[in-house]
Amino acid sequence: MLVELTVKDFLNKVAGNDPVPGGGSIAALNGAVASALTAMVGNLTIGKKNYEEHEELMKHIASLAMKAKDVFIADIDRDSEAYDAVFACFKMPKATDEEKAARSAAIQEATKHAALVPMQVARNAYELMSIITDVARLGNKNAVTDACVALMSARTAVLGALLNVRINLGSIKDKTFADELQREADILERLACEREKEILDAINQELRV
Amino acid sequence: MLVELTVKDFLNKVAGNDPVPGGGSIAALNGAVASALTAMVGNLTIGKKNYEEHEELMKHIASLAMKAKDVFIADIDRDSEAYDAVFACFKMPKATDEEKAARSAAIQEATKHAALVPMQVARNAYELMSIITDVARLGNKNAVTDACVALMSARTAVLGALLNVRINLGSIKDKTFADELQREADILERLACEREKEILDAINQELRV
Repeated sequence: MLVELTVKDFLNKVAGNDPVPGGGSIAALNGAVASALTAMVGNLTIGKKNYEEHEELMKHIASLAMKAKDVFIADIDRDSEAYDAVFACFKMPKATDEEKAARSAAIQEATKHAALVPMQVARNAYELMSIITDVARLGNKNAVTDACVALMSARTAVLGALLNVRINLGSIKDKTFADELQREADILERLACEREKEILDAINQELRV
Repeated sequence: MLVELTVKDFLNKVAGNDPVPGGGSIAALNGAVASALTAMVGNLTIGKKNYEEHEELMKHIASLAMKAKDVFIADIDRDSEAYDAVFACFKMPKATDEEKAARSAAIQEATKHAALVPMQVARNAYELMSIITDVARLGNKNAVTDACVALMSARTAVLGALLNVRINLGSIKDKTFADELQREADILERLACEREKEILDAINQELRV
């Protein structure tokens, strides 16, 4: 697994001349980072004076965030594998008409999968933004900037994953499938940007006062 | 060093109930991620047909990005250390007037340093955005979404670092120092958001066509 590499080796692997791990895996990594920061803000709130009212919520958030982190961690590899699978299909034989048809069908299936993997990352990362909003508003004020960085990371997870959805949609022949994902991508993109802006503007306002 | 941890262990360390590594280190990590993706797009362009014209530029970019990556990697620890240093000053003795004065001066110095470390991260990450713009526009078209994710990561590095600048400025008594950094932070924040939006809008437009 990519997350078994040291941070340094992982970054060097990204920097190399192999297309994976690339933007798709980094989108998932951003989801994992956002989850980890969210758990931290929750943990820094639990048991603290003046935050007793939200104790149960924070415990719930920290637990949810840890689970989300593990899903995103698995997605880091899943995204790279989905890309590799499409690439493998392109190498299938295409000497006969039968081979051509089988190859083309395999490419279509693999490309749909390569669109669905980042779509799920985008959905999960957008869902995480609601939890981040809660820790940003109700969690330990000393950690509010950490919640903001979590929110930015979640936005990168959503938008970065959606770019990988869109780039795959261009090669998918099933128009109904492609149109549905395109519509969902448009909505998630708008919502993620609006949500991030709303919270960051509010907190930047507080920090400047 | 934090980057010697595996990605998984690093994320678990972030998620724990210690304020560091937190948003400041994650801002620097985003700078390192943005640099790594930039180097990758450069590497995926070098030696490719139809990109001969920009061969030298791409080699230059890949080399610059690798150097930037290493600086950001060092910043991941530097940011956490700067935070720990402020925290250590708060534990200094304050029984006598002399001790109080020494403690207060030490806190001020350490807090200035804790503002300057993320300010440098923000400056470097904003500078990186120019290079990312070049690879996004002139690099391998197949890797354009990777350049976009690099750009988002660089924006998080700028904005996340600036939040850590601002939160320290509130405790700094040297008004000239604080005002100057505040002004620079305002400018960098606006420029980073504008730069990201400009490039993402243009590329999203292309991907939808």
